[in-house]
Amino acid sequence: MTAKMASSLLKVAVTGLSRCARHSVPSVRALSLTVPVTVSKGVPQSLWKLGRLNHVAIAVPDLEKATALYRDVLGAQVSATVPLPEHGVYTVFVELGNTKLELLHPLGEKSPIAGFLQKNKAGGMHHICIEVDDINAAIVDLKEKKIRLLSPEPRIGAHGKPVMFLHPKDCDGVLVEIEQA
Amino acid sequence: MTAKMASSLLKVAVTGLSRCARHSVPSVRALSLTVPVTVSKGVPQSLWKLGRLNHVAIAVPDLEKATALYRDVLGAQVSATVPLPEHGVYTVFVELGNTKLELLHPLGEKSPIAGFLQKNKAGGMHHICIEVDDINAAIVDLKEKKIRLLSPEPRIGAHGKPVMFLHPKDCDGVLVEIEQA
Repeated sequence: MTAKMASSLLKVAVTGLSRCARHSVPSVRALSLTVPVTVSKGVPQSLWKLGRLNHVAIAVPDLEKATALYRDVLGAQVSATVPLPEHGVYTVFVELGNTKLELLHPLGEKSPIAGFLQKNKAGGMHHICIEVDDINAAIVDLKEKKIRLLSPEPRIGAHGKPVMFLHPKDCDGVLVEIEQA
Repeated sequence: MTAKMASSLLKVAVTGLSRCARHSVPSVRALSLTVPVTVSKGVPQSLWKLGRLNHVAIAVPDLEKATALYRDVLGAQVSATVPLPEHGVYTVFVELGNTKLELLHPLGEKSPIAGFLQKNKAGGMHHICIEVDDINAAIVDLKEKKIRLLSPEPRIGAHGKPVMFLHPKDCDGVLVEIEQA
C-alpha cells in the first residue's frame, strides 16, 4: 500500500465517519488504515471520484469545415489546429464555457480515428472524457468491477495527463475516457 | 419585428459601439434599429450567443444496466427514471458537476430513438445539447446560414424550454440540439 493509498483510505474512513455521525462508530484514532471500503451498513465508499465532463470528442472528415461550423456559424471560441502526432490526430478545441468539444481529424497512417471515420463518413461523436480524482484507484476499481480497459496501463493523453479508455461494450456503446483531473 | 428582436438589435448595436469605441462611429441615438449585423469592418456581430453544453444524450438498450454503470460502477449521482411520453423517451439524468449525461430509452411505439437503437444495438451517443441565449434569433440566423433544422418551429424540450435540432449532415455527423438557456 502506498502512502497515497493509505492517506486515501484514511480520508474515506473520516468521510465515512462524518457521514455516519449519528451512528455509534469508533473514534478516528481507533480506525485501522486497512479499514474496509464499506465502513457502514450498505454504504459503499469509493476510493476515487468521478468529476466533471472534460470534453466530448467529435471525429470529423474535414477539419476546416468543422472548425468553420463552430466558429463562424455557431459563434464559439475555437483554438488553432493542434497536431498531436503521438496520438495520431489533429485537434481543434471548441470552448463552450463549462466544457469543450474536441474536433479530431486523422494525422498519420495509424490514426486511431481512421477506422471510425471509415464507418462514419460524415463524422460523429467519438468519445466522452470524464475527469477522475485518482486514475490509478479508478483503474484498480474498474478492473475489479469487470469493466474492460483498452490499455494495460494509463497513457499520457492530449492534455499531458494520464488517461484510460473504457471498452464501449461495457459502457452502453459509448467510448468513455477517464482522465486524471 | 417583435419588441424583443428590436431590443436585441439595439443591444447588439450598443455592444458593437462599445467594442468599437476607438473607431469613429455614429452615436447610439443616430443608429437605426435596422442596423446591419456587421457594424464594423469585417467584425460580424451575432444576434445570439452559444452558451454552455447542457447535456450529452446517450441512447441505451437497457436503462437499468446503464443507470447502474454510472451510479454503481462510476459513482455518479443519477436521477430516478423520468418518463417523458411527449418525447417518446424514458430519461435518467447523470450529474457530472459541470454538465449532465442523459440516458435515453424508448417509450412508446413512435420513440424518436427507436431507429437509432436498431442501428446501434449496444447504444451510443445520440446528440449533444448546447444552450443559446436567444433561440429565435439563432433559428433565423442558422436558416440564413443554410443549416437545415429538423422542425419548422422550436418545440418544448425535456427541460420545459424551447429547443431545436440541427441536421447532423450539416454538423459533421453530429445531431446538435440547441436549447433556450
